[in-house]
Amino acid sequence: MDVIKKLQKIVGIDRATTSPVQLYCYSSDSSQIRGTPDYVVRPQNTEQVSQLMRFANKHGIPVTARGAGTGLAGGAVALNGGIVLDLSGMDMILDIDINNLQVAIEPGVIHSRLNKALEPKGFFFPPDPGSSEMCTLGGLIANNGSGMRTVKYGTTKNYVLDLEVVMADGSVINTGSKTLKSSAGYDLTRLMVGSEGTLGIITKAVLKILPLPKARTVMLASFKTPELAGDVVVKTLSAGVIPSACEILDRVTVEVLNAYDPNIAIPDAGATILFELDGTKGSVQEQAKVVEIVCKPLASGIRIATDREEMEEIWSARRLVGAAISRINPNKVRVYVGEDIGVPIKEIPRMLKLVQSISKEFDLSIMTYGHIGDGNLHTGMCIDMLDNEQWEQLDLAADKIHRTAIMLGGTVSAEHGIGSARSRYMRLERGDALDVMILIKRALDPKGILNPGKLGV
Amino acid sequence: MDVIKKLQKIVGIDRATTSPVQLYCYSSDSSQIRGTPDYVVRPQNTEQVSQLMRFANKHGIPVTARGAGTGLAGGAVALNGGIVLDLSGMDMILDIDINNLQVAIEPGVIHSRLNKALEPKGFFFPPDPGSSEMCTLGGLIANNGSGMRTVKYGTTKNYVLDLEVVMADGSVINTGSKTLKSSAGYDLTRLMVGSEGTLGIITKAVLKILPLPKARTVMLASFKTPELAGDVVVKTLSAGVIPSACEILDRVTVEVLNAYDPNIAIPDAGATILFELDGTKGSVQEQAKVVEIVCKPLASGIRIATDREEMEEIWSARRLVGAAISRINPNKVRVYVGEDIGVPIKEIPRMLKLVQSISKEFDLSIMTYGHIGDGNLHTGMCIDMLDNEQWEQLDLAADKIHRTAIMLGGTVSAEHGIGSARSRYMRLERGDALDVMILIKRALDPKGILNPGKLGV
Repeated sequence: MDVIKKLQKIVGIDRATTSPVQLYCYSSDSSQIRGTPDYVVRPQNTEQVSQLMRFANKHGIPVTARGAGTGLAGGAVALNGGIVLDLSGMDMILDIDINNLQVAIEPGVIHSRLNKALEPKGFFFPPDPGSSEMCTLGGLIANNGSGMRTVKYGTTKNYVLDLEVVMADGSVINTGSKTLKSSAGYDLTRLMVGSEGTLGIITKAVLKILPLPKARTVMLASFKTPELAGDVVVKTLSAGVIPSACEILDRVTVEVLNAYDPNIAIPDAGATILFELDGTKGSVQEQAKVVEIVCKPLASGIRIATDREEMEEIWSARRLVGAAISRINPNKVRVYVGEDIGVPIKEIPRMLKLVQSISKEFDLSIMTYGHIGDGNLHTGMCIDMLDNEQWEQLDLAADKIHRTAIMLGGTVSAEHGIGSARSRYMRLERGDALDVMILIKRALDPKGILNPGKLGV
Repeated sequence: MDVIKKLQKIVGIDRATTSPVQLYCYSSDSSQIRGTPDYVVRPQNTEQVSQLMRFANKHGIPVTARGAGTGLAGGAVALNGGIVLDLSGMDMILDIDINNLQVAIEPGVIHSRLNKALEPKGFFFPPDPGSSEMCTLGGLIANNGSGMRTVKYGTTKNYVLDLEVVMADGSVINTGSKTLKSSAGYDLTRLMVGSEGTLGIITKAVLKILPLPKARTVMLASFKTPELAGDVVVKTLSAGVIPSACEILDRVTVEVLNAYDPNIAIPDAGATILFELDGTKGSVQEQAKVVEIVCKPLASGIRIATDREEMEEIWSARRLVGAAISRINPNKVRVYVGEDIGVPIKEIPRMLKLVQSISKEFDLSIMTYGHIGDGNLHTGMCIDMLDNEQWEQLDLAADKIHRTAIMLGGTVSAEHGIGSARSRYMRLERGDALDVMILIKRALDPKGILNPGKLGV
């Protein structure tokens, strides 16, 4: 059978290829995981995806869906060869329906494009991944991605009302409805969100949107120890204030930021917290007052943005973290391994300390930062990628970080996904629930063609 | 085999019965659906439930989980006999963990009891079913119930972090974790929420809680037509205000309320909206100002509560709706059929009109009220229950209401669940997605013993 001919018949001759250069380009995402597909196919509509799946299922050919390839866990990498289905070309914003507080999109729409389209109408789609300018909404949904605003607004799954999904056998279903609220049967929408292309291919999504907050402010508080920072977060939430973002930077992160750009000038401290507060103008002032009162007895310094410019100045420091990390050592490159743990909020100070002891144990600089408001910590580690010994140390350190997070009741992935990078921890973290996932996987994809080798299923 | 002996061996002699009086008491919920079980069992812990399931699965005995029996769709009725598993005795609040914004509970805890325990600490569990004083949290979770505050706070599924579930074969899993955010595998938590006991038995739950808002106000606005009321809701949301509740009462409902208690004195109008706004003191004032500005050109009357007493006075009218409906005609009884439709927000005015034309067509008084902010409408219908002809008319009217909601892109159940009362609409509403649900059901419960005859699976 001439597979490529058949694929080209479905999507058109210039939309399916076996060119080695193309296959190479599609052999990785933004992690270190590699796997070369046999075919790259770029479908244009649901009907084509359905035909492709029917064909692939009949012949047992693996199919790995892919958006922009910004994933950090190998989720979009074709480990077993087969077809990489590049959905980035299906990128229409189909409908912006303000009256129903929802939008309909194709999976290839870039995250920031949606929010740019919504802003003039006074609305927004709250999940805010760091890769906003690059990542596709389909990828965000498939990984249940989120970002800094989760503490107040929740993750992507809270905003998906309906998905059009092509199943393994090519059948097309809608998982939800256009109503904002439904109790009619199993929540297939939530089952698909975060399933990383192992249960079906998302070809359309209806997303809930919210009105843009009218006002916003930013505060920065420095603490002698991570424990004090953790206390302040708990006390802030207990005082009835849910910040729209609540970010922690550890001592190493602040040092790196200040080295990267001396103008940033964040005070040296055991831990620094950035608060963002949003809402109506009055409520932002009230919230800022409460946070200030909570911080005062515990913080070694507090800075509240007085105008828009100062707000941007403080906030830009947080945005620079990803770039600044390269300054730890110019010969080293950041490697995304063990970078996305989540722990119960009250375990954050303990986790920060344990990461620092792991850093010493394996002689690796680790800067830790993240979304303290929801327990999500990113551990940035840099190595010389040509040095095998450093790779080994990194793997050992990451393994210990993962096991420590699970031991504290946490997760190996709070928002980046499991992919293949973290699939070996699924049994430890999820226990017998993994067996239930495997039963579901087998029921919906009996031939195991959908993104094989991922998620531990 | 002496089944009852075996059941008594597992749970204790006084906790498993075949007494006809007991079986009769457990033969219905709060709907008109009837089905007599063969055994009633009242387990006390997870281990007992696990043993019971292992036994039932081995012998193919149906098991129907039940909380307080407040369901309105026959979800807790044993249609095929077998065991009714009364979980109301497993009613411990296991942990209130303010620092992690979560509580752990057993399924039999009554909804209002949890909020009473949280209130002194300044926190609450946002879903607010009308049956708060009676319903169990296990039942609320199994049906993804909600209430008036969904428009701002979402439904129950948004607050479930982890479930301990006994599967059909007796194995025990945890579906989630204690972290507030996770992207580690399939979202089994959300799959279980709303599955009405057809996939497993919930024996523990970890729920997210929120700080109680510091301030609250209530407004009442009257409109000549439902269209104007619908406009105001859309404009309010577009103006960036998300009310904590946004309830509509149609003309019939207001007439009935005023007849029930003349002191209520809601102005006669084509439609009335009750807004509840919450947040900080300042933000509540700001929100009220916005709602007033939006309402002014469209409403025939606006009333804003000036103090706590007036707020309670206005809000108590909404609470009375369920009771007041009996005043339509003292010889008639409210029947819960077709009572829980949901439609896209912008279709609300159209749906209200169609309900009134259905009311005329079948010569049935229908009062419509509900959660306009999320598209959920309750249609209250009363009949003489001894009159077969009225039953027939009622069934025809309810059938038309259900089909109309689906035709408008809506659902036959926004918050009460499908049970057996609405299972025949699952194919029409969910299409081929029902096949996927059936595949999941068969994979997780191959012998079909978990609550058979429900949900269309």
